[in-house]
Order: sequence, then structure tokens, then C-alpha cells
Amino acid sequence: VFQFVSNGSVTSVKGIKAAGIFCGVKKRKKDLALIVSDSLCSVAGTFTLNKVKAAPIVISKEIVKQNGKVKAVLVNSGNANACTGEEGRLDALKMQKECADKLGVKPSEVLISSTGVIGQKLPVEKIIAGLDKIIPLLSEKGGIDAANAIITTDKKIKSFAVKVQLSKGETTIGSICKGSGMIMPNMATMLAFITTDAKIDQSIIQKLLTSCVNESFNKISVDGETSTNDMVTLMANGASGVEILKGTKDYKEYESALMAVCKEMAKTIVSDGEGATKLIQVNVTNAKTQADANLVGRAISNSPLVKTALNGGDANWGRIVSAAGNSGADVIPEKISVSFNDLAVLKPNFEIVLDEKKAFKILSQPEFSVNVDLNVGKESSTWWTCDFSEEYIKINADYRT
Amino acid sequence: VFQFVSNGSVTSVKGIKAAGIFCGVKKRKKDLALIVSDSLCSVAGTFTLNKVKAAPIVISKEIVKQNGKVKAVLVNSGNANACTGEEGRLDALKMQKECADKLGVKPSEVLISSTGVIGQKLPVEKIIAGLDKIIPLLSEKGGIDAANAIITTDKKIKSFAVKVQLSKGETTIGSICKGSGMIMPNMATMLAFITTDAKIDQSIIQKLLTSCVNESFNKISVDGETSTNDMVTLMANGASGVEILKGTKDYKEYESALMAVCKEMAKTIVSDGEGATKLIQVNVTNAKTQADANLVGRAISNSPLVKTALNGGDANWGRIVSAAGNSGADVIPEKISVSFNDLAVLKPNFEIVLDEKKAFKILSQPEFSVNVDLNVGKESSTWWTCDFSEEYIKINADYRT
Repeated sequence: VFQFVSNGSVTSVKGIKAAGIFCGVKKRKKDLALIVSDSLCSVAGTFTLNKVKAAPIVISKEIVKQNGKVKAVLVNSGNANACTGEEGRLDALKMQKECADKLGVKPSEVLISSTGVIGQKLPVEKIIAGLDKIIPLLSEKGGIDAANAIITTDKKIKSFAVKVQLSKGETTIGSICKGSGMIMPNMATMLAFITTDAKIDQSIIQKLLTSCVNESFNKISVDGETSTNDMVTLMANGASGVEILKGTKDYKEYESALMAVCKEMAKTIVSDGEGATKLIQVNVTNAKTQADANLVGRAISNSPLVKTALNGGDANWGRIVSAAGNSGADVIPEKISVSFNDLAVLKPNFEIVLDEKKAFKILSQPEFSVNVDLNVGKESSTWWTCDFSEEYIKINADYRT
Repeated sequence: VFQFVSNGSVTSVKGIKAAGIFCGVKKRKKDLALIVSDSLCSVAGTFTLNKVKAAPIVISKEIVKQNGKVKAVLVNSGNANACTGEEGRLDALKMQKECADKLGVKPSEVLISSTGVIGQKLPVEKIIAGLDKIIPLLSEKGGIDAANAIITTDKKIKSFAVKVQLSKGETTIGSICKGSGMIMPNMATMLAFITTDAKIDQSIIQKLLTSCVNESFNKISVDGETSTNDMVTLMANGASGVEILKGTKDYKEYESALMAVCKEMAKTIVSDGEGATKLIQVNVTNAKTQADANLVGRAISNSPLVKTALNGGDANWGRIVSAAGNSGADVIPEKISVSFNDLAVLKPNFEIVLDEKKAFKILSQPEFSVNVDLNVGKESSTWWTCDFSEEYIKINADYRT
């Protein structure tokens, strides 16, 4: 059993401190976040599959791969330190080392992450100067400031926590994340930092995170883009004394809670997607294979024509069926049925049962579901997407200026 | 040697008549086009790869597949006759048969095509009534009217013709096409009807068309969508007496001319893409394989983030490199260089040589090229795309209303 904590964040977790400040990478807003655990954490991470990987991605990924234990994550926003070559790599290592030195830990115990404009030199001196300011501010109430410091074009800060009751006691999962642009359903497609005071052995923590990421962050789309900088990390410091052991009922309970946090983050990222006005859950059912269910869910979630129609509240189910036909999945067009929430729109053999007024009412809500029954098998998949608005274009036409 | 004819169209070709009228499928604008050849034509066609295929696609595709000879193409706009089930199939057959009867030819000698809204019953009686009006209007000057009658959200009509000088005389290639939405680089992704008075045997006409479509219509993207109704046909009536024989110099000359017409149509479709303000040629060079060159060209041409940046004249080369990294192609980020027209922007090892002012000037032009040198092989690919503007959203948010 788990429940969400109000105003929860990474610092809802025992033994975790955080802070967020302005250090000068951006023009005015907070741009540097630091999350520190009192004790060493086992860690899991998922990283962008884009072949163009930002410098901090390469460095943090290596730490996770080597089964390293970590104490901190340092994140800057405003500059992605991507496509910055050898100089960018050295800047990333420098920001990691300076942070480690000032915290009195090893560089390999500090994960680093960056988000913002690609291809501009990281103003690493500003970040280093910022360290002297941020470290004294670390506190058990700093999670929200940290959440504030990692966002870019996000309109809202994003942080969650749940308390999980297990057989041996209570443990907490806390999180902060950011999203907005370059969000595509293929791996950790934004930044998300999760902390927990559960004790989770290095041998199982990655599996636990991966299974949750696959059903949350990997099932969302704002614009079909996979960034150079995406990462999701889970740090477990064991401060609650509650251990999660493989194959137990507690493991399943804990996994459900972690999944809930990941899905909540994923959905919040979509609903605050660039220019988004609506959060749309896409339920694909009765596909021949799991892969087919995912292909159709992804195609619908990525389709500009579907997303613009939903923006206008237009029940253009033809575009939904067309996207399914285009997805590469094995579909039989005549067998497809479509509904919005509980309102049937299309039945098999292209029997149209659309009530335009009722459909418009549903599609005008801030949140609804598009259900596509392929009717050729038993596999299903759930995705989340947002509408595509004029605002998206405005934001992206002059992002750098 | 070939040259473009001013105000050319399908009726620039000997023995071809056409007309375009309003018959009531749309509210006001022309919506029915008919192209008729005096004599039987050999025919080639390429059709949408979307698994959801409109009724007329299924019927016309079968004619081409059976190596049929044809005399006419009947096209309506305003209604796609897609996702209309068995009723839609019967409507399509009816429109084909009525047209054939009234022209005094066999139904299998009439290709049919539809474009417009998906999932609404075709008002076939209006089309049949329109036949009595359009047939008397068929003329050697009707090509532009026909071009007018096939467009939907296109802002401009699209028609071209070239005269080709071959060893045995002159032959002409004429064309009309429409595009605008649901344009994606995978097969004939809009409607294009090409006529020619060359004599081309059925055994080679398909190969000729396919090779030209692959380098033109299959290399464009407006929004990454493949429609349910796309088709390109080439009808050759032999009226010029000039025969195109396999393996000859004339074949190559003729193929170049046909390629030029196809590319011109493809580029016009992109530059008049929904909301497009700019025509962008994407040149990908030095890829490891042809497939890789295409993957990168397609990824850049489809990327909303690249297309919105270009809309704003923003030299955001990072998004271009990121799209390449995301394409699935085998790329080495450090080896990539990028230029706009002749202006180098990024050199290998992420050496940035961007002159923002000069770049902005180029990206503010209505037409320019984005050149991406992958520097890992010898294969190249050329694509055409447009920018992504607020207008695109406006058009598509309420297309049906």
C-alpha cells in the first residue's frame, strides 16, 4: 500500500538534502540543483538512446554501468553541454570534480546532468562559483528549489513523493523531473531524479528502475524527439532500514509504488509539454503482439495530424485509424474500433457511430482517453500524449533567442 | 535535352483532354477532374503504403497491377472515400462504371482517385451528376481546370510540362498534382497525374515511374504522415510517335525529363505544404550506406524541432545534429559538419564556426539548403522539407469544420 505525499519531492526521503539556486547559466531563473544523500546510495539509471550524447550523459552512464555507489547529483539547466566536443567533456569532468571536492567525496560518487541549449560552451566557471553558494543551502526542505532549478521551458515544477507501507516498515520514494520539449517515447526522454530511503541492492536496482521506466517515460510523446541529454536515475540510501528483496511481496508492492511515481512524472511532463493544453491517454487493445500494440500507441501519440485535431477538439477518428495503418503494425483496418472515454465513435467495418456534440464535449476537456481496439489479438499498451498547439511553434521557433 | 513549358499541364500532351468542375462534394470550389486520352495508354502507378487504403486506391492499384491499358482518370476532391467500408467500395466502383459508360469505354480503362476528408460517405450521386457536366467540357486546354479541381488545402495549383527532344523527334510530359497535408517521405504521398505522348511499352513504364518517384515524391516531408489515398500515375498514349526503348540514350534522356517533372512537383508540394513559408533542401553526404543517408535525410526532414527552428530563422544546428543522432543511422557525432547554403556552421569535432547574422540572413530566405556531411562514407541523399509554422496548427485543428 502506498500513498502520495502532498508537496513531496526528493527531500521527502530520509537522509536526502537538496537545494536549487541561480548561478548565471540562465539569464535570471534558477539554474543549478544539487541533491545529496547522507550516506552512499546504490544507483540505477536509464539514458538517452540518441547517438549524439551530451558530455554529462557519457560520464554518468559510465558510473551506473560500473555499479558505482553515489552520494550526489549535480544538475544545471540553461546549457545542455551537448555537441561541445572534448572541451565539453573536460568541462563536465571539472564540474563533477569540483562538486566532489567541495562535498568531500570522490568524483565517481557524483552524477552530473545538464539540460538546455545544445552546442554552446558550458559556462563551467559560473557553475563552480555556484557550488560555494549552493552547498551551504542544502537542506531537508530543498527539494522544491531543486525542482525549480532543473526546468527549462516547463511551465510548472514537477515533484512527487509516495510513502510505501511494507512488511518491515515504511519507506519513501521522492522525485523531481523536468520535461517540455524533445520528448519522445524511446528511453528516458527527459530528466528525472528519484531518491528512496529503501535499501535496494545494486544487483536488483537497475531492473526495478528499467521496468518502471518502460511503462512510464518510454510511453509518452510530446513531439517525437529524443534528446541528447535525457536521463532518469534512482538513488537508494537505505536510511529507512527497510530492505527490498527480490521475489518478495514487498518487492512487488515497492515496484507498484515506484511505477506510480514514474507514471505520475511522465503524465505531468506530457500535460506540461510545450504548448500542450490537453493530456491524452491512448489505450491500444487487442493487438496481435506487444510490439504491435506499442507501434500503434506510438504512431498515434506522435502523429501531428492527430495531435492538431485533438487541439481543435475535432473528432477526426480517420486520422487515428490512418496513423494506426501507418504504424508498421499488423492491423486490419476493418476490424478497428475507436472510442473517446466511454463514447463509441467507430465500430468494426467502419460503422460510424460518432455523436459530434458529445465527442466535442469530451475532446474539450483537459484530460481524456482515446481508445483503439485493434480486434486482432490480446496484447495492449497505454501511452500518453498531448495536443499540438500554435504555442508549440511559438516556443520552438525562437528558443535560442 | 528537355525544357519546361510555361503554363504546362497534362493537356500540354498530344491526344490528352481534361476538364475540372464543381459538382457539390465541396461547398463551393471545383471538386471533380477528368483527364482523358484519345487512345489507350500504357500505365504505371505508385500507391500509398498505408495499410488503411481508400477504396479508389484499391481499385486503381489493381488496374495497374494487371497491366491494364487505360483511357481516363477521374478524380474528386473534398471526400477521400477512405474508411468507408463496403459501401465506399461500391461507391468507388459506381463512379468508375458511370464514367466509363459515359465515355464509351470499359470500367477497367478508368482510373479513379479521391482526396479529402476520411470516413465520410462519398456523395457519389453528385459525382455521377457531375459527369454529364464535365464530359462536354473536356478540352485540350482543360489541364489547369483539372489541376484546380484536385486541390484541397493547397494554396496554389500545381501543374507542369516539359518538352523532350529525342533522336526520333519531340515528346511531351505533362502533369498536375496536389499535396499540402499528410505528406511524408514513403511512397507516392499525394496525388500526381502524369501524361505523356511518348510510346512506352507496359513492360518498362512502371520501372521508369518508380525510379523517378523514389528520388522525388519519396524524398519529401511536410508532416511525416502517409495518407490513405496517395497515388502517382503515368499514362503514355504514344500520340507523338516517339518510342522510348530500354537501354537507349533516348531512354536516359526521357528519364531525366520525367525526373525533372517529378522533382518539380515534389518541391512545389513541399513549398506549398500546410503552413509552409520556406522550402528547404536537405543534402546528406558521405554516409556509410544509402540507407543511412536516407535515414538521416528523413529524420531531419521530419523533425518538428528542426522545422520550427527553421521557421524562426534560428540557426539551431544542435537540433539538426540531434536528429541525425536519432535517425537510426550509423553516425559518429564528432565527424558531422553542417552548412546552410555555402555558409559553414559546424565543422568536425564540434568546431562551431557559426556567424549568426549571416546564418539568419540565409534562413530568412524562402528557399535554402541544409547540408549535413556525415564524413563516414560515400553515399548521399537529397530531401526536401518545409518549415513548421503556427499556420499548420490552425489549418489542422479544425480541418473538418
